[in-house]
Amino acid sequence: MDKSFFRSLFSPELEAPIFIEGLPGFGNVGKIAAQMLVNHTHAKRFAELYSPFFPDYVIISKSGICRPPRYEFYAASTGNPHFIILTGDAQPSLEDVTAHYQLCDEILDLAEKHGSRFIITIGGVPTPSQEREIYVAATSDNLAMKYMEKGAIIYGKGRIMGATGLLLGLAKNRGWEGICLLGATTGLRADREAALSVFNFLTRSFETDKKS
Amino acid sequence: MDKSFFRSLFSPELEAPIFIEGLPGFGNVGKIAAQMLVNHTHAKRFAELYSPFFPDYVIISKSGICRPPRYEFYAASTGNPHFIILTGDAQPSLEDVTAHYQLCDEILDLAEKHGSRFIITIGGVPTPSQEREIYVAATSDNLAMKYMEKGAIIYGKGRIMGATGLLLGLAKNRGWEGICLLGATTGLRADREAALSVFNFLTRSFETDKKS
Amino acid sequence: MDKSFFRSLFSPELEAPIFIEGLPGFGNVGKIAAQMLVNHTHAKRFAELYSPFFPDYVIISKSGICRPPRYEFYAASTGNPHFIILTGDAQPSLEDVTAHYQLCDEILDLAEKHGSRFIITIGGVPTPSQEREIYVAATSDNLAMKYMEKGAIIYGKGRIMGATGLLLGLAKNRGWEGICLLGATTGLRADREAALSVFNFLTRSFETDKKS
Amino acid sequence: MDKSFFRSLFSPELEAPIFIEGLPGFGNVGKIAAQMLVNHTHAKRFAELYSPFFPDYVIISKSGICRPPRYEFYAASTGNPHFIILTGDAQPSLEDVTAHYQLCDEILDLAEKHGSRFIITIGGVPTPSQEREIYVAATSDNLAMKYMEKGAIIYGKGRIMGATGLLLGLAKNRGWEGICLLGATTGLRADREAALSVFNFLTRSFETDKKS
Repeated sequence: MDKSFFRSLFSPELEAPIFIEGLPGFGNVGKIAAQMLVNHTHAKRFAELYSPFFPDYVIISKSGICRPPRYEFYAASTGNPHFIILTGDAQPSLEDVTAHYQLCDEILDLAEKHGSRFIITIGGVPTPSQEREIYVAATSDNLAMKYMEKGAIIYGKGRIMGATGLLLGLAKNRGWEGICLLGATTGLRADREAALSVFNFLTRSFETDKKS
Repeated sequence: MDKSFFRSLFSPELEAPIFIEGLPGFGNVGKIAAQMLVNHTHAKRFAELYSPFFPDYVIISKSGICRPPRYEFYAASTGNPHFIILTGDAQPSLEDVTAHYQLCDEILDLAEKHGSRFIITIGGVPTPSQEREIYVAATSDNLAMKYMEKGAIIYGKGRIMGATGLLLGLAKNRGWEGICLLGATTGLRADREAALSVFNFLTRSFETDKKS
Repeated sequence: MDKSFFRSLFSPELEAPIFIEGLPGFGNVGKIAAQMLVNHTHAKRFAELYSPFFPDYVIISKSGICRPPRYEFYAASTGNPHFIILTGDAQPSLEDVTAHYQLCDEILDLAEKHGSRFIITIGGVPTPSQEREIYVAATSDNLAMKYMEKGAIIYGKGRIMGATGLLLGLAKNRGWEGICLLGATTGLRADREAALSVFNFLTRSFETDKKS
Repeated sequence: MDKSFFRSLFSPELEAPIFIEGLPGFGNVGKIAAQMLVNHTHAKRFAELYSPFFPDYVIISKSGICRPPRYEFYAASTGNPHFIILTGDAQPSLEDVTAHYQLCDEILDLAEKHGSRFIITIGGVPTPSQEREIYVAATSDNLAMKYMEKGAIIYGKGRIMGATGLLLGLAKNRGWEGICLLGATTGLRADREAALSVFNFLTRSFETDKKS
């Protein structure tokens, strides 16, 4: 395998799905929030991404069954709006900068093929405080304002690392719109509470959008 | 050399050979066990793999003769079943993740060309205890159970690094079946005893399979 | 994105523009001096370079707006001579040697397309002294002498790292002429004074060139 | 520049030249010995190799003139035998394993085009003793014996790193013959004495070969 490849499980029928990313990272906020959304929206896994940029090990289940690390794409088409939700086992090494750029573009290609033009990336951000703030960065002033009015704090600290930042930036370069939501977390351990905060913020936000 | 290449020494006649991998690694369990199998099955070296992903040095024999590092493929076609046995001098650097993926796929291509659809990878696993346990991970529940009944312990610890893990995982993605056997070893030095345990387990297992 | 790409904003009309580079580096001397030149010459941004070799994060403004890191090209065509000025957010990792070579050549291709055959790269050089010396290295003895007569000190210390050195060296290999100006700086923090020294040296030098 | 390229200065007329490599390395033994051979044989520089695998800096002379790092090829066609001598500024980073393999093959291609089928690589080897031993590794037993009879000691320590090892190993894979001579050196600083020992050993050896 010298290139990434997608394994298609079924072909979902989606209308202008919102593309949501939650991968392993700080406090695992993104990955846990994405899994909550998969459960909440009864999303079905429709594609897997295998890549030579992923770590060179296999993952072994408790019953001893192996599989290579992968990204998983879930489709939710029963509610409104539709969603594509991306989660996965591991990100490429932070040092492999080119890998990050390449994977992000392959992922955006897939989402675009299914009609996505709006992206929401989810991650964690370390804070010393105990508050459960949600921070937002966006592709435009309007969007940043909109989510600020919903209760998020503008993230003005300079950088967002890895897929959570890069997917948003590269999507913007393609003319998409989107936001990044960062849940404040105090530790490096999996932080279910921070993930729950982001999940609740997101689902409330979708409800309000539908009513307006 | 900007690509790996196989040097073919002769073309073995093999029927559905089991593909066995034992490369340098923890306690050198895999490499030593593979060499025992080569001797036991009177396997002949039929191909060598040279690669720009291998370390950038040459290996010098005691008599001063040089050669680049390589993987070696041995064919055993006198017994039942037939085997292809892979061993070698060194693995790519652990940091060169892409190299691992690419080499593993090139190796599986070669084995597939000779009719292999079943893989056994061999490695070592560090344990504090003095017991000579054999751990097993597999591509399916059935296989894991089968080798558990033969005396191996299910390996449920999460990850298997390097070629020993990745070959099994990528073979599974191709629809092969297979197992990984990990010999418990207490040290980083070459552990002949651990290798012998795995070798004995394997040869006993092949005997039982033939009788059944 | 597996390749760098230029986004063109408009097509400037330039005659034999001098190509000036000032990217982040020691004391940020190059980047700050380049920004001073952009302001001084009323240069307009006409192209952006995005690359998988840039860091894998997005840059977030104070108002929460994201964008991927990039290089920016400015065109100044109102004065005499014309200029193309390159500045940007970040350089590729120092370890990614190949990336540096590739980016530098892509940049020189762009400048050459617009008629550039003379390059001035700007950087900082650490010195313990408090003097504001300007050091010069050049593609030829004549040029080194010329700028020495203008007050710069010959830089004979062996190496110039990163784009500031490599752009000059690769331009020389293409048959261009050019110089590198290094402002002495005592610290790693952004050193506006050192940048101002280089800026003043450069603008004085352009004035003298016009009169002669 | 995303590929290495050769700049040809003139086209030498060579008959079965011996290819000699001496690049920067331990004690700089190889590079210094190669320079001695260039002077001794009145060899002329006929080609330069530039590569994105070389360090990302430019080299500045004492008079302030820059150039990218490069390998240099010298042709000696006045004596008997003819030589191609390779020396240069710097080797690729030791971590960039693939670069080493690729460069070595490009270099052997050039030498082969000019009729070389015999290679002598020169390096240094650290020893605690004060003796000026010369160690030899070879592509065949005959060659190792031949140079042992000339006074060299068989090098049986396992590995030779970098271009000095890899060029010999890859040349062997192409069917060339050749040797590696390692001069014992006690330090990391440029060791002219060790280089002189190898140089003397080599020139004596060529004289004896001619008489026989």
